[in-house]
Amino acid sequence: MHAYRSHTCAALTAAETGQTVRLSGWVHRRRDHGGVIFIDLRDHYGITQVLCDPDSPVFSKVEKLRAEYCIRIDGVVKARDPSLVNPKLPTGEIEVFIRDMEVLGGVAGDLPLQVFGDQDYPEETRLKYRYLDLRREAMQENMKLRSDVVASIRRRMWDLGFREYQTPIITASSPEGARDFLVPSRLHPGKFYALPQAPQQFKQLLMVSGFDRYFQIAPCFRDEDPRADRSPTDFYQLDMEMSFVEQEDVFATVGPVLQGVFEEFGGERRTDPADQWPRISYAEAALKYGTDKPDLRNPIEMQVVSEHFKGSGFAIFAKILEQEGTQVRAIPAPTGGSRKFCDRMNSWAQGQGLPGMGYIFWRDAEDGSLEAAGPLAKNIGPERTEAIRAQLGLKAGDAAFFLAGKPAEFEAVAGRARTAIGQELGLIDEGRFAFAWIVDFPMYERDETTGKIDFSHNPFSMPQGGLDALSGDPLKVLGYQYDLACNGYEVISGAIRNHKPEIMFKAFELAGYGEEEVRKRFGGMVNAFQFGAPPHGGCAAGIDRLVMILAGTSNIREVILFPMNQRAEDLMMNAPSEPTSDQLMELGLRVIPRD
Amino acid sequence: MHAYRSHTCAALTAAETGQTVRLSGWVHRRRDHGGVIFIDLRDHYGITQVLCDPDSPVFSKVEKLRAEYCIRIDGVVKARDPSLVNPKLPTGEIEVFIRDMEVLGGVAGDLPLQVFGDQDYPEETRLKYRYLDLRREAMQENMKLRSDVVASIRRRMWDLGFREYQTPIITASSPEGARDFLVPSRLHPGKFYALPQAPQQFKQLLMVSGFDRYFQIAPCFRDEDPRADRSPTDFYQLDMEMSFVEQEDVFATVGPVLQGVFEEFGGERRTDPADQWPRISYAEAALKYGTDKPDLRNPIEMQVVSEHFKGSGFAIFAKILEQEGTQVRAIPAPTGGSRKFCDRMNSWAQGQGLPGMGYIFWRDAEDGSLEAAGPLAKNIGPERTEAIRAQLGLKAGDAAFFLAGKPAEFEAVAGRARTAIGQELGLIDEGRFAFAWIVDFPMYERDETTGKIDFSHNPFSMPQGGLDALSGDPLKVLGYQYDLACNGYEVISGAIRNHKPEIMFKAFELAGYGEEEVRKRFGGMVNAFQFGAPPHGGCAAGIDRLVMILAGTSNIREVILFPMNQRAEDLMMNAPSEPTSDQLMELGLRVIPRD
Repeated sequence: MHAYRSHTCAALTAAETGQTVRLSGWVHRRRDHGGVIFIDLRDHYGITQVLCDPDSPVFSKVEKLRAEYCIRIDGVVKARDPSLVNPKLPTGEIEVFIRDMEVLGGVAGDLPLQVFGDQDYPEETRLKYRYLDLRREAMQENMKLRSDVVASIRRRMWDLGFREYQTPIITASSPEGARDFLVPSRLHPGKFYALPQAPQQFKQLLMVSGFDRYFQIAPCFRDEDPRADRSPTDFYQLDMEMSFVEQEDVFATVGPVLQGVFEEFGGERRTDPADQWPRISYAEAALKYGTDKPDLRNPIEMQVVSEHFKGSGFAIFAKILEQEGTQVRAIPAPTGGSRKFCDRMNSWAQGQGLPGMGYIFWRDAEDGSLEAAGPLAKNIGPERTEAIRAQLGLKAGDAAFFLAGKPAEFEAVAGRARTAIGQELGLIDEGRFAFAWIVDFPMYERDETTGKIDFSHNPFSMPQGGLDALSGDPLKVLGYQYDLACNGYEVISGAIRNHKPEIMFKAFELAGYGEEEVRKRFGGMVNAFQFGAPPHGGCAAGIDRLVMILAGTSNIREVILFPMNQRAEDLMMNAPSEPTSDQLMELGLRVIPRD
Repeated sequence: MHAYRSHTCAALTAAETGQTVRLSGWVHRRRDHGGVIFIDLRDHYGITQVLCDPDSPVFSKVEKLRAEYCIRIDGVVKARDPSLVNPKLPTGEIEVFIRDMEVLGGVAGDLPLQVFGDQDYPEETRLKYRYLDLRREAMQENMKLRSDVVASIRRRMWDLGFREYQTPIITASSPEGARDFLVPSRLHPGKFYALPQAPQQFKQLLMVSGFDRYFQIAPCFRDEDPRADRSPTDFYQLDMEMSFVEQEDVFATVGPVLQGVFEEFGGERRTDPADQWPRISYAEAALKYGTDKPDLRNPIEMQVVSEHFKGSGFAIFAKILEQEGTQVRAIPAPTGGSRKFCDRMNSWAQGQGLPGMGYIFWRDAEDGSLEAAGPLAKNIGPERTEAIRAQLGLKAGDAAFFLAGKPAEFEAVAGRARTAIGQELGLIDEGRFAFAWIVDFPMYERDETTGKIDFSHNPFSMPQGGLDALSGDPLKVLGYQYDLACNGYEVISGAIRNHKPEIMFKAFELAGYGEEEVRKRFGGMVNAFQFGAPPHGGCAAGIDRLVMILAGTSNIREVILFPMNQRAEDLMMNAPSEPTSDQLMELGLRVIPRD
């Protein structure tokens, strides 16, 4: 017999009744019933109930076992009495009578956290004793899910003719906009490597090298300040790139991959088919949803209703509208037509730092006619109120909220209000993964304080209209750049790249970077583009975020095996730590003493 | 029609004759035949011959094309004249008459290296213009091979019930014996993270966490001085670990994976079946092959022949044998029985810094009897000579070489002599992948200069015999530690781990490390082992080396997309480079000025 197990703890059924078996695993739960000791023996695959009565030669040893001892038992499989069969457990038909037992790994002292049960522990405890935390069922499931999602992505990419290529990790600084992690060079003291924020330049170089279809489940490194939905150090993305493609080719390729993954792992939740994912321009998304990652499970779409307030009796809005570039936007709230609800949302808005949100709601009057209520309705009068209702397509029992000002100043909060209203009114279809491609991102934006023009997203995207477009107003230039939004998250970001050196130099010039600066910062790629670069494009999808969405959690650390804490420390492994003076000497570095 | 291609450059056959098609790719070769321009158009998938005659509306544009321009052409497929069909090319039945052409990416200036043809270039040129070097057929094939090998490994591991789990890359120092790459922490100035030399501790923690079967194609980082067969920065390994296993379980699991990969990608070369791979103890390997990574394609096995030289007339050896711990070892050389060959090998030995290698060779005397020749035969006389021949099983036409001294001092050169003899005599079966598990590695070795006992390999291996074995002579303790050798390379290294804290502390104590030191250096793992650790073991296989062997190259940079040069620099991307003073300030570091 094998030294440790003849079966896993998920394998035994009534078919093995009478057999002598060997199992190894952990003491999940231990109960004492009238002198008989019952143990739920747990391994990675499942749980088997094993028991020991005083007749067993190892009873006194088994008596001493406590939770999380790792043991090996030999025993005889017996069918449970029909009344005791546990239909929830694959092994629920049987139990194993222990005849021999060996402690493979004991537990010294008290467990800092219990594996059995659902007790909550502070995150610091969970991370410090991560190896115990990971034994818990929910964490086992999350990690298996993550592994299976990544495996499924790989299979799907291979099936589409993509090969995975590994790009360097110890390399040069990459221009992704975040802060690099640096690695001091020992052979070149005083010089540093950087860890890639993304394999952006390398994947573009692969296209120049003729590899045609590249992907990688790529580790990425950004020295960013920690947040709940972001790992403070390293994270993984599905990085992909294709040659000889346009934007729609990328969508047609990666869309079905994501659709397939969400269908495979989404459980009961429905996935919109990729060929029906809407394309929404950045401008339209900002207007209707107040964000470039709209949650389309929420049916609410905002509308511009400025004309109804221009010169109206509602002086605040009328006055705002006299300023250039201002707007009034309505957030329709179907089924929100009660003063109580409207007041609650108004308080919510005050909690967000707004003076409040104007609203109108509609109800059936006693005479059966439609009645508009709320302060705004009175101020602007019945005709304008009715015109608004008609435009928004609302009816009795519905409401609408209004925000006014410069869109850039209220769009974000309007987006949050849309979400809050949708949630409060139960309008969000929780059983669905709703995707949309967000397209036509502006290439440039103006910094409001400095007035300077800079890239709004990726400087390597191809401007729509090419070189010609770059001779007009930079703020009107759109890029072949796109995101995929799902349920309010950005799950993919990508672009058709700018593969023509002359367009690239011009694009950078508009953002204030001279040719020399561009050559200095992105020399590897710019040089490569002078030797027959193909048109190419691609995208990247954050693995951690995909798994978060599928696992239904909003804390990224629930889907990472050994995450740092929010101070970017690993208390289990003791990282970061002080270097030795020899190490510093070899690297030619000195630590500046703290004041 | 698609913007860039209706077909790849490997797709067209006579079946498409008459169709108008669109192709994109690079100008591989351009020839001018009597006013008609022939272009071999190349993409990732293949080559199609396209041609342009003066009737074409784009003739003057096509005339200007040079090698490596990236172009799009529209044209009409025509069947080639039967006499012009190229059976070596999948597209050899047809050619495409160009009707329209667009330059997608031009070439500015001269190409620093030619993609077409087999011209050699200095490695610095190849690495600086890697994107051109990678377009060459051999490099495309190597990179595809690497990608396909990794994909095949993943499929095979999944099929065995392993899941891939990603372990941290920015983490704590790992005790693999090499030098860590450090990463300064910005949030904790003066402290450093380290990049993992291998995920050793994490994979063991995964076993403690109950994950049962782990693997990862894991990036590993060692700040080592560069060598031809080693990447100076990062490399990849197939890292795997299993719980509740013994050594033979690991062999039975990973052996067939490697066998399958070598069968799949080994081409004509035969792969020994995994269930027949011999187990050779470390001691036996040292004796027979002079190395722990023997090339078993070479049939030569060394033997101890000390008794035949003890007190013999060959005074040098007889004298050596009077010292304790000395030995004479014979390297049989079947078919090497000529003075010319023996003298050549003797010169080889002198080139290796030895005074020479004694030899005997056997030939048919004129009277038909067997005659032994060479200086040694004369010195030790016919009886001893014959006894040696009989022990080695040699015959007329064969030879044997002899080395004497302390095995530790001559074993390495004896191993090289065995290889040189095998190669010279053509005894090595080049058409075979010959594997062997090397087992029973000693746990400890004595440093010859300091006399100190230290771990000879991995300190985390379980000593054979457990705690009891550790109370005797440390130099006699063997570990459950193993390597897999293939054709003279170590392709796998692994161990059954020491999962019991009390045995671990004792094992470290023998090597001079106190409990406190162990807790300080490996605290994460040692703590974990106190909470019910399962027996576990595993191994790691170097991906770069596997691909090197399969690709038939001995330069690791031939199987890495963007390798550093031998000074650990990337001249294409300009790494490492000077940090900005802001970066240093944020990290709390100062560069020590060079003298």
